[in-house]
Amino acid sequence: MNSSTTEKIKIQKADKSRIDQVDFENLVFGNVFSDHMFECDYKDGSWQTPTIRPYGSITLSPAAKVFHYGQAVFEGMKAFKDEDGKVWLFRPDQNAKRINKSSVRLAIPEFPEEIFFEALTTLVKMDRDWVKSGEGNSLYIRPFVFATQAGVGASPSTEYKFMILMSPVRAYYAGDIQVEIAEHYSRSANGGVGAAKAAGNYAAQFFPTNLAREKGFQQIIWTDASNHEYLEEAGTMNVFFRVNDTLLTAPISDRILDGVTRKSVIALAKRDNIAVEERRVLVSEIVEASKNGSLKEIFGAGTAAVISPINAFSFQNTTHNLEKQDDSYAVKFKKELTDIQRNRCEDPFNWRFEVV
Amino acid sequence: MNSSTTEKIKIQKADKSRIDQVDFENLVFGNVFSDHMFECDYKDGSWQTPTIRPYGSITLSPAAKVFHYGQAVFEGMKAFKDEDGKVWLFRPDQNAKRINKSSVRLAIPEFPEEIFFEALTTLVKMDRDWVKSGEGNSLYIRPFVFATQAGVGASPSTEYKFMILMSPVRAYYAGDIQVEIAEHYSRSANGGVGAAKAAGNYAAQFFPTNLAREKGFQQIIWTDASNHEYLEEAGTMNVFFRVNDTLLTAPISDRILDGVTRKSVIALAKRDNIAVEERRVLVSEIVEASKNGSLKEIFGAGTAAVISPINAFSFQNTTHNLEKQDDSYAVKFKKELTDIQRNRCEDPFNWRFEVV
Ligand SMILES: Cc1ncc(COP(=O)(O)O)c(C=O)c1O
Ligand SMILES: Cc1ncc(COP(=O)(O)O)c(C=O)c1O
Repeated sequence: MNSSTTEKIKIQKADKSRIDQVDFENLVFGNVFSDHMFECDYKDGSWQTPTIRPYGSITLSPAAKVFHYGQAVFEGMKAFKDEDGKVWLFRPDQNAKRINKSSVRLAIPEFPEEIFFEALTTLVKMDRDWVKSGEGNSLYIRPFVFATQAGVGASPSTEYKFMILMSPVRAYYAGDIQVEIAEHYSRSANGGVGAAKAAGNYAAQFFPTNLAREKGFQQIIWTDASNHEYLEEAGTMNVFFRVNDTLLTAPISDRILDGVTRKSVIALAKRDNIAVEERRVLVSEIVEASKNGSLKEIFGAGTAAVISPINAFSFQNTTHNLEKQDDSYAVKFKKELTDIQRNRCEDPFNWRFEVV
Repeated sequence: MNSSTTEKIKIQKADKSRIDQVDFENLVFGNVFSDHMFECDYKDGSWQTPTIRPYGSITLSPAAKVFHYGQAVFEGMKAFKDEDGKVWLFRPDQNAKRINKSSVRLAIPEFPEEIFFEALTTLVKMDRDWVKSGEGNSLYIRPFVFATQAGVGASPSTEYKFMILMSPVRAYYAGDIQVEIAEHYSRSANGGVGAAKAAGNYAAQFFPTNLAREKGFQQIIWTDASNHEYLEEAGTMNVFFRVNDTLLTAPISDRILDGVTRKSVIALAKRDNIAVEERRVLVSEIVEASKNGSLKEIFGAGTAAVISPINAFSFQNTTHNLEKQDDSYAVKFKKELTDIQRNRCEDPFNWRFEVV
């Protein structure tokens, strides 16, 4: 292994790339990882030497607090390669800030944004061959941090590990999706951790989502836990409803993730003179709009899912189907968003970030 | 290392015990572990060979789903040594059942109760010297299970690790405790995972608990997430309120852990002809009872905390102090419970389980 050091990061290079062993045409989302990973430990009150080393296993105490108390948060972002071979990140400042917001809520020490950026860009540069150009291809980037102190007392850890893994991916959902509107289970509580990308939020959704899958729905649209009256978001994406030509989406709250894709769609809609209402959306209102024909589209928005059209939703054992629209907003926003992400158009909002 | 096999468990013994290095008078809760641990992996749809080996580190993929999606649940139980050197567990069947109940909610495969019992008893027998007799001493036992499959797609893991660690402990709380009643943050949602011992439930409490600590409170009593009107439970214990001579405690729901200590206190109270009401308890009712002098005691009940008297609670920036009672129920139940646990009296409910 070659060793070197950037200004801040200690680097151990892999002897040999594993890239030739990868079938890029048949990737399962998040199952294959690039040659290198980033790692930085927190102890004695500060972050230690940041390190990039070959992707590989880690050794922990079985008493590490992450296993017992779920003290862990993460981020999800993507790198894109344009037709000229340039590599781009999309609004990475948002993820740098959000992981720290999540960390604060989970009593995890914040990670310095400056090291986050240096880690991210160094890592992407080293593994830039893993970013494939072409529609649907990207390198999914997973920064995360978790509690490593050994101890089974229920209190915040004094030690943590911050890591970044990278995984070449294609589309998250193959086609259109059907969703169930939550009537019994819920994702998050008022005053809870729903607004954080906290690890435990995701495990909590697996069982209800399995039940939904058995009924033929890929995802659940969560509703407020108090009365299941208001629509909130899906498991890994925020949700938009198009009623006539107006877009509706739930407002950000302590139960909902402040999605980067969501806020980008809102910005694009405003630019395009499409009315957007960020407000509480009643389930009954959407059911009614479906019945009277004013509900034109539903789509999810998220880094992994990009823009995912939802062509049916189920509520109170009734499935409401949505017709394909010729002037689909989902199709329009997906194109506008991916054109910016992949450097196929101007970047009016300054969202693109080139990795050089 | 000696190797041997019980009927089902593969055993590797430690060459040398670490027990002589332990200062049993000055234990921090859950920071020291006994010589051996239990480990059993799930893959290809079934639990593999159960193993006991020397306590030590584990190696995992950094993409193991537990780090990303918090798919992990645990249990907490204790072994006690009586004056004759016999070792006892307390209602272990409850923990065997509850960990599987938690697992189901987190989409984790259930662990066979029979192997759970064999693991538990074999491990406690091997490390029986770590169970110290004498008031306050016990061996805290931590069964837990977490997702090990490498993959950052948000779906249930196909691989898991079930483990049992053991830690010699003394009392969890040194003295009486002060609590804050939650008015903004909350622990769990209707239809959420509050009734499961899910790892993520605990991390979610650290930040609000830190805020409470800064104000001088050791714990928070959580209230319903909808309106913060009803009292639920504390972070690691269920809570009882004594109003005049009646005990009040929140009913079990999908937001509250069905505590073994809680149900044991209820059984003891009934035997002792003390009225117990399992019903929703209004914060306002307890504040009122405090004002008019009918609120005699508040105490927490849990495996780690045993019975912990609470001598003050804060609500709306007012601290309500409780006077010491001569006929304290907390003191009475603590004695009755620990007498049964430590084989100092009859066992009318058949709660004790001897490890031979
Ligand atoms: C719960 C949840 N909502 C929404 C999103 C979408 O957020 P973003 O657009 O930042 O990826 C995600 C993550 O991707 C999520 O986990
Ligand atoms: C949230 C919570 N409530 C209550 C309890 C008490 O349960 P038990 O008496 O079974 O230990 C615990 C755990 O010990 C807990 O984690």
